[in-house]
Amino acid sequence: MNDEQARMLRDLVREQNVASLGTLHAGAPFVSMVPYARNPGGAEFFIHVSGLATHTGDMLASPRVSLMIMAARADNPQSRARVTVQGDARQIPTGSDEYVVAKASYLAAFPDAAGIFELGDFSLFRIVPVSARVVGGFAQAFSLGAESFARAMHEH
Amino acid sequence: MNDEQARMLRDLVREQNVASLGTLHAGAPFVSMVPYARNPGGAEFFIHVSGLATHTGDMLASPRVSLMIMAARADNPQSRARVTVQGDARQIPTGSDEYVVAKASYLAAFPDAAGIFELGDFSLFRIVPVSARVVGGFAQAFSLGAESFARAMHEH
Repeated sequence: MNDEQARMLRDLVREQNVASLGTLHAGAPFVSMVPYARNPGGAEFFIHVSGLATHTGDMLASPRVSLMIMAARADNPQSRARVTVQGDARQIPTGSDEYVVAKASYLAAFPDAAGIFELGDFSLFRIVPVSARVVGGFAQAFSLGAESFARAMHEH
Repeated sequence: MNDEQARMLRDLVREQNVASLGTLHAGAPFVSMVPYARNPGGAEFFIHVSGLATHTGDMLASPRVSLMIMAARADNPQSRARVTVQGDARQIPTGSDEYVVAKASYLAAFPDAAGIFELGDFSLFRIVPVSARVVGGFAQAFSLGAESFARAMHEH
């Protein structure tokens, strides 16, 4: 990954605010939409999900998830930049110090979500990346480990 | 599903042209981006994928996939309409009658893809829906069987 690729990846994750979340449901993949925020370091993801939603039970049963973020519409769909992050999802205990940080990060990204935090059945999950696959356009792809992904998210 | 919901679903699938494809990879979900076209009836999906891509081997090994289509950016991310289609993916034999129809449907949606059909490692898959989960916005969700999904796609 060169500097230009790192910048492209960082801009992609910054500019978008929703991802496609893949979870394991009854042995098969299940994809849903989730808004995401990031931890203060920028390399981990926070999502806020309903206990009534399929993906929530899926993550509790099978923590390995896939999070795909793609750029807005392009002239040629194959040229849309996107990244697939494989990671491990963990429910954050409500009221913990970690929860306070995650909630603040989430509300900084989505101020309108304050009301949802009042609903009892929602919880925050942290997704810690394990690897990433980046596609910058047609036939422009590369894979990253967790450390390289984190470095790309941190650089200025 | 009432008429308004059916129209919302049909418009969503018509207006978008890329989906988030969830496949099973080494026992875990993997999400990637795929452009999609539809069969002449409108209720099944055609995708054109590289033999070098992770999702292609995944579909050959585990046909049950998840295809999530979401509306373009909204003011509030939770209000973005989206549908998750669970379906079975099957590789279409190159040169078959089915292939001719699928290729024509695909090229009608993506004329620029003609060159990719010249590459030997690409193939067409048909995804036949088994069920669908539609989210029209915050707390507006409903589930559909394959027949209801097909009816929504066909209506005018």
